[in-house]
Amino acid sequence: MTVIAVDAMGGDNAPEEVIAGARTVHGEGIDVVLVGDSDAIGTVESSRGPLPLREATQVIGFEDDPARSVRDKPDASVVVTARLVASGDADAMVSAGSTGAAMAAATFIVGRLPGVSRPGIASIFPTGHVVLDVGANLEVKAEHLLQFAVMGSALAQVYRHVERPRVGLLNIGEEPSKGRAIEREAHALLSSSNAIDFVGNVEGRDLATDAADVIVTDGFTGNVLLKTSEGSGRAIQHMILETLSHPDYADLLPGLMPAFSELRERLSPESVGGAHLVGTRGVVVIAHGSSSRTAIANAIRFAAEGVEHGLVDRVGVGIESAVH
Amino acid sequence: MTVIAVDAMGGDNAPEEVIAGARTVHGEGIDVVLVGDSDAIGTVESSRGPLPLREATQVIGFEDDPARSVRDKPDASVVVTARLVASGDADAMVSAGSTGAAMAAATFIVGRLPGVSRPGIASIFPTGHVVLDVGANLEVKAEHLLQFAVMGSALAQVYRHVERPRVGLLNIGEEPSKGRAIEREAHALLSSSNAIDFVGNVEGRDLATDAADVIVTDGFTGNVLLKTSEGSGRAIQHMILETLSHPDYADLLPGLMPAFSELRERLSPESVGGAHLVGTRGVVVIAHGSSSRTAIANAIRFAAEGVEHGLVDRVGVGIESAVH
Repeated sequence: MTVIAVDAMGGDNAPEEVIAGARTVHGEGIDVVLVGDSDAIGTVESSRGPLPLREATQVIGFEDDPARSVRDKPDASVVVTARLVASGDADAMVSAGSTGAAMAAATFIVGRLPGVSRPGIASIFPTGHVVLDVGANLEVKAEHLLQFAVMGSALAQVYRHVERPRVGLLNIGEEPSKGRAIEREAHALLSSSNAIDFVGNVEGRDLATDAADVIVTDGFTGNVLLKTSEGSGRAIQHMILETLSHPDYADLLPGLMPAFSELRERLSPESVGGAHLVGTRGVVVIAHGSSSRTAIANAIRFAAEGVEHGLVDRVGVGIESAVH
Repeated sequence: MTVIAVDAMGGDNAPEEVIAGARTVHGEGIDVVLVGDSDAIGTVESSRGPLPLREATQVIGFEDDPARSVRDKPDASVVVTARLVASGDADAMVSAGSTGAAMAAATFIVGRLPGVSRPGIASIFPTGHVVLDVGANLEVKAEHLLQFAVMGSALAQVYRHVERPRVGLLNIGEEPSKGRAIEREAHALLSSSNAIDFVGNVEGRDLATDAADVIVTDGFTGNVLLKTSEGSGRAIQHMILETLSHPDYADLLPGLMPAFSELRERLSPESVGGAHLVGTRGVVVIAHGSSSRTAIANAIRFAAEGVEHGLVDRVGVGIESAVH
């Protein structure tokens, strides 16, 4: 059975929502280990009996310096969670706490895969595109973008069931000469690599096309891409509601409600359940800080799926072939 | 009467659509001067008689090197268009040709306003936000971002009728310490300037909020922001249509068609009519290469509105107060 270590103290709604999400999936062929303060957590019953708990007396908050806290708080919930993966007691970790702390814990304690210079944070967009880096490395070199391309391809294989994912480089035009020095260098490097299927430059508007399965960029630009697509989605939902609030449409609105719910569900970050930190020796899923029990449950399922489809090995093999 | 010089040879649909757009607005209290090859253009009748034509025998294409072409083709339509503004024969210029060529012609021939280091390209989003730079300067310094803030504020005053526009710095989090070195420096500089009303960092998701009227960033990130919001808009329109194509909604669809048209219209780049190159001694509107006659007409109206509301003077005064 796949074992997922869950940081019960991480997130705006911890531990209540984390516990509720974990309890749901514990009956689904996944073994959850909750990590945190036993007084706060108490005994958590699931359909398969009480959830195992690993004690952790400290917590790292959103305002704490991530790297320093991971070093200075050896008994923090996210640190103990990472240690369970490092020791092999768990196959994957999930945290809805500070992204920086989860990244630091995973990188220092779970450790990087051989050949990986910089783990990256990948997000699977509602459109199905795998995008990375969305925030771990604000500035990168071309070789990092090649590694992101490999990592993203493994994710697209596992989660999108694409055998040979097509990788696009986020840029401001199609031609190889477009962009900053980093994009021009990366274009040349990605073009010359046999480890990936590079289709050239793509643009933000390709979120509406099937031009690529994986989109690579630096963590600053990727974070802007992610939040802009969320913001545009919300802005358009406002516009639709504004338009339909006209009396002309009053009779149609009740019949449309299921369609709106479906759309909101499709665009919701909750449906995906979290971002992946890729490039470490374990599956690491970082859920939104504001995760509800549903989002936590999805994040845990997402982590289990990664374990079951050999995500880490796929990344390892890809990196091997990319750097040699 | 406001005189607008229009590059009749620029754009995918030139000269036909450009001529048709120009003809429409020539009856609206705007004097248009068409610039281009008189054989290709012919005599263009409007409700106020034939449109004046200024001969230009050369054309700069999308594939030509912009700066070099502007220097080597002194009789190119976009160059002659810019010269009309420089000489005072026109108050503003509009081109749907190569953005790079229009930028080079405007910068070299119309000239920069005193104190302006780098003219920027601004776009007014369907949400009403003024965003710059969206592509003129891929990498910038903090002082350029301050100048963009001033330029964007002038645009928001003229086009959005906001008296004291609030300026946000595009970043990946709210705290001043977020982002790359350029964002941290710019945050400090923008905070200390009295020339603008700086409200701090904003994120892509603020396209759905009223947190700022103007959003400043480098031209690479701004271009990604622009195209991502277009792409997300299109992706969501696809999702809506997909959802509503279910038989459950078949009866509702005909009644919804006007709402869809309204939404498409609101999200269409055609409605706005073009991007501004700001920081030169004239109003310069760069229309999409694919502009239809409607888009061209809107771009010309947009330019005339800038002239009538003293856009250039507003930018000049703002830059003066920002750099001293």
